[in-house]
Amino acid sequence: MSASPRLSIDVAAAAAELLPGLRASPPLAHCITNSVVTGFTANVLLAIGAAPAMVDIIGESGMFAQIASGVLINLGTPTPEQRAASLEAADGATSAGTPWVLDPVAIGALPVRTELAAELVSRRPTAIRGNPSEILALAGLSAGGRGVDATDAPDAAIDAARSLAGRWGSTVAVSGEVDLITDGERLIRIANGDALLTRVTGGGCALGAVMAAFLGSARDTDIDVLTTVAAASLVYTVAAERAAATASGPGSFDVALLDALAALEPGDVIAAARVEEGAL
Amino acid sequence: MSASPRLSIDVAAAAAELLPGLRASPPLAHCITNSVVTGFTANVLLAIGAAPAMVDIIGESGMFAQIASGVLINLGTPTPEQRAASLEAADGATSAGTPWVLDPVAIGALPVRTELAAELVSRRPTAIRGNPSEILALAGLSAGGRGVDATDAPDAAIDAARSLAGRWGSTVAVSGEVDLITDGERLIRIANGDALLTRVTGGGCALGAVMAAFLGSARDTDIDVLTTVAAASLVYTVAAERAAATASGPGSFDVALLDALAALEPGDVIAAARVEEGAL
Amino acid sequence: MSASPRLSIDVAAAAAELLPGLRASPPLAHCITNSVVTGFTANVLLAIGAAPAMVDIIGESGMFAQIASGVLINLGTPTPEQRAASLEAADGATSAGTPWVLDPVAIGALPVRTELAAELVSRRPTAIRGNPSEILALAGLSAGGRGVDATDAPDAAIDAARSLAGRWGSTVAVSGEVDLITDGERLIRIANGDALLTRVTGGGCALGAVMAAFLGSARDTDIDVLTTVAAASLVYTVAAERAAATASGPGSFDVALLDALAALEPGDVIAAARVEEGAL
Repeated sequence: MSASPRLSIDVAAAAAELLPGLRASPPLAHCITNSVVTGFTANVLLAIGAAPAMVDIIGESGMFAQIASGVLINLGTPTPEQRAASLEAADGATSAGTPWVLDPVAIGALPVRTELAAELVSRRPTAIRGNPSEILALAGLSAGGRGVDATDAPDAAIDAARSLAGRWGSTVAVSGEVDLITDGERLIRIANGDALLTRVTGGGCALGAVMAAFLGSARDTDIDVLTTVAAASLVYTVAAERAAATASGPGSFDVALLDALAALEPGDVIAAARVEEGAL
Repeated sequence: MSASPRLSIDVAAAAAELLPGLRASPPLAHCITNSVVTGFTANVLLAIGAAPAMVDIIGESGMFAQIASGVLINLGTPTPEQRAASLEAADGATSAGTPWVLDPVAIGALPVRTELAAELVSRRPTAIRGNPSEILALAGLSAGGRGVDATDAPDAAIDAARSLAGRWGSTVAVSGEVDLITDGERLIRIANGDALLTRVTGGGCALGAVMAAFLGSARDTDIDVLTTVAAASLVYTVAAERAAATASGPGSFDVALLDALAALEPGDVIAAARVEEGAL
Repeated sequence: MSASPRLSIDVAAAAAELLPGLRASPPLAHCITNSVVTGFTANVLLAIGAAPAMVDIIGESGMFAQIASGVLINLGTPTPEQRAASLEAADGATSAGTPWVLDPVAIGALPVRTELAAELVSRRPTAIRGNPSEILALAGLSAGGRGVDATDAPDAAIDAARSLAGRWGSTVAVSGEVDLITDGERLIRIANGDALLTRVTGGGCALGAVMAAFLGSARDTDIDVLTTVAAASLVYTVAAERAAATASGPGSFDVALLDALAALEPGDVIAAARVEEGAL
């Protein structure tokens, strides 16, 4: 991401450029994530071609964020050790210019992670990914959902996403039947994906890690953050569609998703993309 | 579970009533569980139609147990943080009337979890699930197994189960080739299931989570705790049988179990049920 | 492993002897491992016929290492609790004569685990398993890789492996396209395996657990440590080859690997073995 990033937001073309680049030079995706999805997240990253590293302890996460290509901080099961390591990682990433993604899982109703999310967002994450309830809660506009479920429709979170983007300079991705990605000025809608993503654990969490990997790869290109985050979402949701086409249920979907991510070609993404781009 | 619960223990009929109810209104299943099975447990809950949430830190688990539909406390890898969070959750569940399940994994030989299990059981869990060795150890009748293996036959644990049920008012489920469920007065035997459940990690642990979800759903019905716990076991073991019929080994069984749980219909459960009900 | 272990290192024959023995009398494989691979590791152990137990807390891991058949200490996500529990387990294993395996994941660049690995290796593990970068770092010959990736070729780690074996009396296994196993005098090369093992998380970590299980089983035989560690690698990599032959990608490979491990017969191992044995 150079000083004057490309303004075009042709998401499918960006995805088709980033995917082979990522595979040719695997970005080191540093994840601090929840205990439920660590294995699945690492497998998603490996499947797509990235190099995962789950470094989530005090004394290591800060320095590792400096050498990583991209960082994910996911608040799903924030132990005291992980909370301190998350702040350390955010500071390390910031000091080194490493792009980082905040996934504020289940904030709003749960006080410990809500406070942590507030501390983290003030460090200006490169991207924020969440369901509508979480984005509303992070913007201070809602008490949040009852857990990791989205209890609000994505469009209900557009104002919150704009507010977060404006305040912290972050690109904000709101997951839902149609994914919304905005930098506060432009808005991208991605209609790809499958409902089975909501029937497996980590369906959303792993996407945050993919975004961190793509942001790492995009550092070698002139593709901007908004487009990169959208490209990550597009690749992931197109793979999910292909997986769903062969799956018999959530178990076989998980397996097929990993296979589809590994097999996906740039042309597949371009052919399947259902992306709308416009002003916010 | 109303004040005068239905006395009938027609387990298959109860399962056939609870399963669509659960899917129509997904219970929030709050799990504090071990690091080995978190992902699989969440996937089992999602597959069956419930909403999992792994909230296992101090300062969140107690309040979350109050808003959850049902709670699982599994002692498989009890870090200090999880131990404190478990007591907090048990107290939160008790104060709010949330049903909760205790799974005393590998107690007996291992002192830290054995002491924790004693503290938890005195808080009167709605249900207790374990293998025979664990149930014997929890009742103080055995030094316990050498790990998560069942080293005693289920019938050897009947006296221990009766003792626990009488002392703490809990429904006790003993896993084995034939599952035993008792409230201290009535005894239900479920002969469904497959040996492959013992060849995958979390085969038993995830059942505890399913029990918590079913107990959450049953709060809207007049089905009693004993019947609900048995219905959860029946649904799970019937799905396991269907999965085993198509599996080539433990890996494909895990996948097929998730698919089978998602596809299972009430009529499937009724047709396959092998349940015996009687006095203890 | 008797006082005068067999000197022959016919690895395939040893594997063919150990595998049915392990299944007939499942070794209790005590694992302290990272949060990313706990579930997969337990499933690999169950698939091959061993009994996994993840006991990684202070106050339990030391005593459990004394009753376990074999112990794995993997440093992938070493929380303070796990670090203390690892030292406790190493001491317990040593005092009881339980064989134990050290997997120094991602040491070198990351200071906390690097210091812990130094403390552990001085306790003289029975076996050490790592990729070339980790073996080099443990021997003090390299700053280590950037994570769990192997950034050096296995042969580049031969001197480091010899040094570690000589200094600590450990058998050292270096993973790569060809696996190297040495006790400082003899060197075994195993050419089995598949690149898909590097596309799934835990592909290497689970092998460390399989080594611990095999070392536990070998205690009842006269097969020496070097041969046992090589036999574990051989069984695992032959199963990986069989899995890769049917897999469509990393997701289906993981599933097929578990199925293949459960189905593998001694004759399959002998027929597929590509093993070279010689002086170092």
